[in-house]
Amino acid sequence: MNILVLNCGSSSLKYQLFRMPEEQVLIRGGIEKIGSEDALHTYKTDGQDGQDQTTSQILDHREALQQVIEVVTHRSGVLQSVEEIAAVGHRVVHGGEQFALSSLLTDEVKRAIQDNVELAPLHNPANLQGIEAMEAVLPGVPQAAVFDTAFHQSMPPEHYLYPIPYVLYKRHKVRRYGFHGTSHRYVSSRVPYLVHRDLMNLKVISCHIGNGASVAAIQNGRSTDTSMGMTPLEGVMMGTRSGDIDPSLQEYISRKEGLAAAEFSSMLNKHSGLYGISGLSGDMRKITEARAKGSARSALAFDMYEYRIRKYIGAYVAAMNGVDVLLFTAGVGENSPLLRRKICDNLTYLGLELDPQANDQGKGERIISLPTSRVTVCVIPTNEELMIARDTQVLVSGLESWEK
Amino acid sequence: MNILVLNCGSSSLKYQLFRMPEEQVLIRGGIEKIGSEDALHTYKTDGQDGQDQTTSQILDHREALQQVIEVVTHRSGVLQSVEEIAAVGHRVVHGGEQFALSSLLTDEVKRAIQDNVELAPLHNPANLQGIEAMEAVLPGVPQAAVFDTAFHQSMPPEHYLYPIPYVLYKRHKVRRYGFHGTSHRYVSSRVPYLVHRDLMNLKVISCHIGNGASVAAIQNGRSTDTSMGMTPLEGVMMGTRSGDIDPSLQEYISRKEGLAAAEFSSMLNKHSGLYGISGLSGDMRKITEARAKGSARSALAFDMYEYRIRKYIGAYVAAMNGVDVLLFTAGVGENSPLLRRKICDNLTYLGLELDPQANDQGKGERIISLPTSRVTVCVIPTNEELMIARDTQVLVSGLESWEK
Repeated sequence: MNILVLNCGSSSLKYQLFRMPEEQVLIRGGIEKIGSEDALHTYKTDGQDGQDQTTSQILDHREALQQVIEVVTHRSGVLQSVEEIAAVGHRVVHGGEQFALSSLLTDEVKRAIQDNVELAPLHNPANLQGIEAMEAVLPGVPQAAVFDTAFHQSMPPEHYLYPIPYVLYKRHKVRRYGFHGTSHRYVSSRVPYLVHRDLMNLKVISCHIGNGASVAAIQNGRSTDTSMGMTPLEGVMMGTRSGDIDPSLQEYISRKEGLAAAEFSSMLNKHSGLYGISGLSGDMRKITEARAKGSARSALAFDMYEYRIRKYIGAYVAAMNGVDVLLFTAGVGENSPLLRRKICDNLTYLGLELDPQANDQGKGERIISLPTSRVTVCVIPTNEELMIARDTQVLVSGLESWEK
Repeated sequence: MNILVLNCGSSSLKYQLFRMPEEQVLIRGGIEKIGSEDALHTYKTDGQDGQDQTTSQILDHREALQQVIEVVTHRSGVLQSVEEIAAVGHRVVHGGEQFALSSLLTDEVKRAIQDNVELAPLHNPANLQGIEAMEAVLPGVPQAAVFDTAFHQSMPPEHYLYPIPYVLYKRHKVRRYGFHGTSHRYVSSRVPYLVHRDLMNLKVISCHIGNGASVAAIQNGRSTDTSMGMTPLEGVMMGTRSGDIDPSLQEYISRKEGLAAAEFSSMLNKHSGLYGISGLSGDMRKITEARAKGSARSALAFDMYEYRIRKYIGAYVAAMNGVDVLLFTAGVGENSPLLRRKICDNLTYLGLELDPQANDQGKGERIISLPTSRVTVCVIPTNEELMIARDTQVLVSGLESWEK
């Protein structure tokens, strides 16, 4: 069964075509600048060395997806015909309180995604555009939605509510949702293979540290807390996002600098984090380089970033009264041995012992703590697309078994 | 040497007269509704059973302080004459970055307090009013300022900076200051007497849980982090204050509810916390009662409150890579065995073992963990006034030794 996984933004999209259940990626690609005359489509088939690239006029998501199908079924030679695509899985950012699991797309599900537009005004509309364009391009092919928030719906109220008037939750759904759920779910699903213990008896802290970053406390396989909240701005310090600040800063800074609410929000989302402190970049690779060359502001940015992640780890250890597995994933989490080392060097009170060689020189999915360590530390490359393909496969198979 | 300790608010003040170095409180009292015709002055001398009360017209701080002096030196019979007051110590809320220690009051110090009015618009002006009124009432008597922020000036930049554009720190002093410093300093100064170890070799987490609440990480006797930030709104959930929230909530809620910035701020400061969730009260005693009687919302408020304190404790254990002493102080911290137990029950991963009897039935300053516990847990009643008296005594004695 071939499953096409789609992640649609407002002017871009990414896709991967999986052969399931082999979990083989047949082709992966992306289109940028949708809505322009020089939209760029890049793709690479399984085993191909370089990548192919075409530039053409693509006016909307429907044209973009038509081109994707054309590439997949003809140009790349991966499939012989469109009939070989059994299902499409979509990444959808915000499932609100309606979705604790992935779901086949129906009119009702689409309405629920629409209902949550206000909670994710940048993402849900683009996700919906992708879904509706796909329905037009591949009518009759089952589609599924996999929500970034769903995994965290297992949080109990005392973890997901804000300490503000309760009526705001009832009236406007103001609560903590959390994001990166598909990633946290994927990497935690890998833990039993690495540590040879049942996830149902483990306390796991998952650090998804990429451009956006979140930490999740996963107890008995379920998310019990996570650092992002109603929006992806809350939590740890990120590349260009602030994460947590004093709630009084907005009034003070806006008055001092004459900022409108939208400008303040833009400052916190795009000009803060590593970038705001270093003045240099939101990219951890550049910060690490500048730090090594003696940049004091980059060193400060690095230290703040590390410290704020470490505090969340400590908080979640207290939240679960212990931790068995600490794992790192996503761009920075997978690729910065320095960050992992600095974090772990200050967690020896947990009996955590890092294996410096496995941390520095190992590659891919692995344990990076010593066998004597009381906390198993892992690096687990994330794969949200595969998780979406798996969910879609399960949902479609359920559908088929009903229809038989 | 008799030292008068003053805490001046905008329309109220509290005072205690200490005999030093005996640390005996000769009289304590307070005036409410300053600026009205029926200002209420309540006071109680050492050993007195009830308290005395007078109502009179008091138009400003100067008249209020004249009445305090009159009560201290005549009406109560505590002192024979005003000459017996050797010095006055003032609580001042915000010392900004200028004060890491208490200071004798000079014109320069007063200007610095004025400079920090913007950081504490409700408190510093009232503190200054009290200082200037006292200068008029007791000319020539040395006065000292003891700052709520000073103890936390030892925080390193990676702990006190916000992950926002660095220029905002340089331009507007936007950074974390922390509060309750005098209390955290007092209670941590008591630790060596309880645990018989040098504070210089201890990692202490101090939980000041009153109407306002803050947690501090104190390493080698110095504050290295604390949960309140630029303002006392940041940090743990409090009686009526929210503490930490997603920085995006302001834009969302203000738009939904049509709130101005000041209204949003008022909501977070006065209608949130225990009160906001329970809909009942910001007073932990009432919440605990209602919870015991089956109120679900009060139980939820209690659980959120406990959880958010526990997460800060866990974060600070990770910040210091361990903890030797966990202490509780202030109204709730001293008087809620239930809260302390719920927190400690989930910290057994630290080898912490609570002594239920000492926790539930003990009184006053004491250890409430078992001798085998790897973390010593203490209850230490706070005494900010005594700390102010001690600092003032030291400063005045230095002054005297210079003048000799």
